[in-house]
Amino acid sequence: MDTIRALLTVTARQYNTGQSHVESCRRLLLTAHEKLASQSSYEPYGNFAGRPPVAYNVFQIGGVVSRPVRPDLYIADQKIFSVHYDQFVESLSDKTAAWTNDRIHLANQVVYTAVMSFACCYDLWQRGSRKTPGTFFEILIAGLLQRMLPTATFSKHIPLAALLHDPEAAEGVTPVNLIQPEVSDEEASSVSTDLVISAPGQSGGIVVPLKITTRERIVQPFAHQRILDSAFGPGQFNSLLVCISETQLDDRTKSVKQVCVPGTVKLFQRYLAPLRGIYYCDIPQRYAMPDMQRIVPVRSIGDFFPELAELIASHSASRN
Amino acid sequence: MDTIRALLTVTARQYNTGQSHVESCRRLLLTAHEKLASQSSYEPYGNFAGRPPVAYNVFQIGGVVSRPVRPDLYIADQKIFSVHYDQFVESLSDKTAAWTNDRIHLANQVVYTAVMSFACCYDLWQRGSRKTPGTFFEILIAGLLQRMLPTATFSKHIPLAALLHDPEAAEGVTPVNLIQPEVSDEEASSVSTDLVISAPGQSGGIVVPLKITTRERIVQPFAHQRILDSAFGPGQFNSLLVCISETQLDDRTKSVKQVCVPGTVKLFQRYLAPLRGIYYCDIPQRYAMPDMQRIVPVRSIGDFFPELAELIASHSASRN
Repeated sequence: MDTIRALLTVTARQYNTGQSHVESCRRLLLTAHEKLASQSSYEPYGNFAGRPPVAYNVFQIGGVVSRPVRPDLYIADQKIFSVHYDQFVESLSDKTAAWTNDRIHLANQVVYTAVMSFACCYDLWQRGSRKTPGTFFEILIAGLLQRMLPTATFSKHIPLAALLHDPEAAEGVTPVNLIQPEVSDEEASSVSTDLVISAPGQSGGIVVPLKITTRERIVQPFAHQRILDSAFGPGQFNSLLVCISETQLDDRTKSVKQVCVPGTVKLFQRYLAPLRGIYYCDIPQRYAMPDMQRIVPVRSIGDFFPELAELIASHSASRN
Repeated sequence: MDTIRALLTVTARQYNTGQSHVESCRRLLLTAHEKLASQSSYEPYGNFAGRPPVAYNVFQIGGVVSRPVRPDLYIADQKIFSVHYDQFVESLSDKTAAWTNDRIHLANQVVYTAVMSFACCYDLWQRGSRKTPGTFFEILIAGLLQRMLPTATFSKHIPLAALLHDPEAAEGVTPVNLIQPEVSDEEASSVSTDLVISAPGQSGGIVVPLKITTRERIVQPFAHQRILDSAFGPGQFNSLLVCISETQLDDRTKSVKQVCVPGTVKLFQRYLAPLRGIYYCDIPQRYAMPDMQRIVPVRSIGDFFPELAELIASHSASRN
């Protein structure tokens, strides 16, 4: 894990200081993928009892078990993963490449495999650092999006407290220190957004909250959108919530649960503020149902890339 | 811990089914207090570096250390605690008893000692059950308030998703099962409020979110208040947030931090929805400062009792 931690430190420092972190991020995720393949076993765990049932694997070693992993999304073969990853990253620079179904599926698999490799290493060998996989998720997605949108402006966080124009208020906002991700970032996460992307020269923008799973933090993106609507007026900012999955192992029954709160999402969407869309690599079945889709679109992370690009383009066009 | 767990089960069952739980709750908290006194050592840990500095103790045994405890608030003597507790509970039935400063201070000490006894037992002997102390906090306060307001209507939770009048939405609302508090109540906590108290025969009421410490859940009471304002109109519901402390041990420096997010609180108060007041046993120094008090009153739990009683009375009067 020393190598992985060291690579994360380098990657995070580059990201924080605005240097290109694509190369070190690639090395980091391939190292994590290789470590899992060579030092743990990858085996079927159990099903999610959905319609249809969904099979999940886990990585394990010496009785320690990782989070559940979908074998139909996780690219286990190292060679294939490395080729697909490079292919996908390359393709992001090519504005003429169409977002075919195959490409959308590939994007989903590549992101899933990268994030799960890293997260499962932490599950097996660094249990205490619960927040670090989320940090890696943000760094990875930021790198991919910077490649896809080279002229857009990226800011890591909107320090919402700055809205108060109150110097004393600002002390509540501690910037997330990615280099020491173990340090509590509770304060930061409760008041600042994740990625914010703006079309060149435009105010407002697209907020991209990134959460591997939402759990009790589901309220945050809705509350942030509400605050942005109140402070800047509706329409200035739109939120696209990007997640990996909502799964949980059930040790007793050796099965997997998809933890969904459809009522909560509907409630927040209606009475706090509406998100523009929600994206998952492993879309929870409950959220794919028509009653949810009518309230808020829930689609794959593969769909996120073209939809973000379109939103940024239309944002730019409508203001010029 | 078997006795304490068994007593909690009984107390929680009584509370859930609307039976009087005062007696079993008393037995439970005195048992926890006695266990700490006889089976752990209670020693100075370090200061919070405030103005003035605040001294904290911890309970410890075999290298395991409890959360920080203020020795000036915690009544360590068993006999004195038991007498004070009974005195305070008794006094709640006496509508003619004035809320003198002494009585307010006593209320604060009694609640602090009861909640900390229970929570520190779990810190030392049942680390895995992180949410159980919060459950006990709710049960304790509900019992005290039922005694003070015998004619008021208490409901445990407003299932906010029911607002949607959407039967499918309701499936997201899992009632908190207090008898098995280890079971994940993440879904429930994100969509339902804690105690709700209404004047006899009135709609609307006072929402009392109870959190031993707020941490990243600070957003919840503001978001819930916003949802209630949106759904029922402002003024129908008011929220009084009740907490114990915001402390955290710093193992490295053997000191105690008070984790405060003044900017966040100001932001939420202004752009989500205003709370009517925030109460602590161990009031964080930062929140007692004038800039915060101008935005939202932060006072002691001793003040919470008379202020709630007054609010319920005025609520009742203004509608009759």
